[in-house]
Amino acid sequence: MTLKMDAGQLQAFLASDFGQVADDFVVERADLDGVRVRLRVAERHLRPGGTVSGPSMFALADVGLYLAILSRIGPVALAVTTNCAIDFMRKPEAGRDLVGEARLLKLGKRLAVGDVVLFSEGVAEPVARAGLTYAIPPGRG
Amino acid sequence: MTLKMDAGQLQAFLASDFGQVADDFVVERADLDGVRVRLRVAERHLRPGGTVSGPSMFALADVGLYLAILSRIGPVALAVTTNCAIDFMRKPEAGRDLVGEARLLKLGKRLAVGDVVLFSEGVAEPVARAGLTYAIPPGRG
Amino acid sequence: MTLKMDAGQLQAFLASDFGQVADDFVVERADLDGVRVRLRVAERHLRPGGTVSGPSMFALADVGLYLAILSRIGPVALAVTTNCAIDFMRKPEAGRDLVGEARLLKLGKRLAVGDVVLFSEGVAEPVARAGLTYAIPPGRG
Amino acid sequence: MTLKMDAGQLQAFLASDFGQVADDFVVERADLDGVRVRLRVAERHLRPGGTVSGPSMFALADVGLYLAILSRIGPVALAVTTNCAIDFMRKPEAGRDLVGEARLLKLGKRLAVGDVVLFSEGVAEPVARAGLTYAIPPGRG
Repeated sequence: MTLKMDAGQLQAFLASDFGQVADDFVVERADLDGVRVRLRVAERHLRPGGTVSGPSMFALADVGLYLAILSRIGPVALAVTTNCAIDFMRKPEAGRDLVGEARLLKLGKRLAVGDVVLFSEGVAEPVARAGLTYAIPPGRG
Repeated sequence: MTLKMDAGQLQAFLASDFGQVADDFVVERADLDGVRVRLRVAERHLRPGGTVSGPSMFALADVGLYLAILSRIGPVALAVTTNCAIDFMRKPEAGRDLVGEARLLKLGKRLAVGDVVLFSEGVAEPVARAGLTYAIPPGRG
Repeated sequence: MTLKMDAGQLQAFLASDFGQVADDFVVERADLDGVRVRLRVAERHLRPGGTVSGPSMFALADVGLYLAILSRIGPVALAVTTNCAIDFMRKPEAGRDLVGEARLLKLGKRLAVGDVVLFSEGVAEPVARAGLTYAIPPGRG
Repeated sequence: MTLKMDAGQLQAFLASDFGQVADDFVVERADLDGVRVRLRVAERHLRPGGTVSGPSMFALADVGLYLAILSRIGPVALAVTTNCAIDFMRKPEAGRDLVGEARLLKLGKRLAVGDVVLFSEGVAEPVARAGLTYAIPPGRG
């Protein structure tokens, strides 16, 4: 099992293929344990009260595991999210970026499954946890 | 069982308390069967290829059921999403708004549970389905 | 869109292919809206206190949607559950059977998705709700 | 943060309060990282083909996190499962017990959240992964 894309290549892929949101996300690490992505929290990610919104947390989880899949199969594939179950556990801290630790638990021919734990940067207790499934298109690679 | 807020009151609540996103959502119906909310799809909701993004679908589901709860308990409460399980089933059609049909299945003292089915406007087959749980703060009402 | 198996055929399929649990379930209805299955509640399905256990509710949801898929594609296929998100909302009533109303929301070539609402027989308010996904093996039909 | 019940106490609690299923489960470890529980796979847990059934996997996940909560708050509480999202990733191996590694991610006053990864004993790749939420009754402790 090897890595087909490292953190720099994943970041470049975001810029070229997801230009609209690429500035929101920083790929901090990509290795065989998974991928760590940071959401640069800006005004548009916030809810009243200054905490990160649910959709922004969902977006971080989705991007995190998507990149974890690409790190293994390369940029050719177009995986599609089919399912996400997310538990919101604590309010994210105002004024801090959000970090997602994504790990791939299964990379099959047709389905990939993994989970992501989300943290306010520098805080030990997680704010959310998500399990996600992706359909892998036939004939990849 | 009665309704404490109708569609107009829910729309006004969005404008006053969620000004940042209120323009995105139109409350089309609120009755004892649930709430119907439309996402006015704009450039910022799209992914490459022109379909509505996952986070935007999540946001519609979340707003839909949140408003279904408020329609029953009134604007005093501050319900918090604790869980969402969403199945993405079909690509939304480009150039169409997205509509969410939210129904409340349980309104307890501490937890509210319901589900939302999402459609591209005017298309019969659903694009997504979500089940959501909210924690109701103590001492409401 | 037509039905390939009716209630009687689904019941016979359970008996021949899932003999171990076939006596637990009664297929009460199968039509284009979905499938209704009853769990004949017996001692082995109960938790202390006399209510139906979580695993038994899960089993009813899983069987219900599985049969809803078979009613459309016939007994040749071997669909596999890949995901289930279940909300437990109320305690089932002691001394009553449990009924599941399953509806198929998507029947694709590779994935089928639907949901099931569970009731204590004769009680209006649901005890649980589940969304499930199944992988359809290639080359069915 | 300390442990209120160790593995032996959890096992004894199962025997006294869940006699019907206590023989199915062996509490192998309980510490601050979580709880490890083994399902002694028997004929009644199997599906045709000899693999462990979905409801049995659900039961192991549910028992695992339930015990992880009790290990922290003691046997007085009566936590109730409100939600479970489970991904079935691989077929369990025939002839092997199933092991669940449960970790508690949040222990709040009203809700507890965690996840469980399930393995066929001695096999590295997980067969399933579940996220679960429990409602904690008021006035515990």
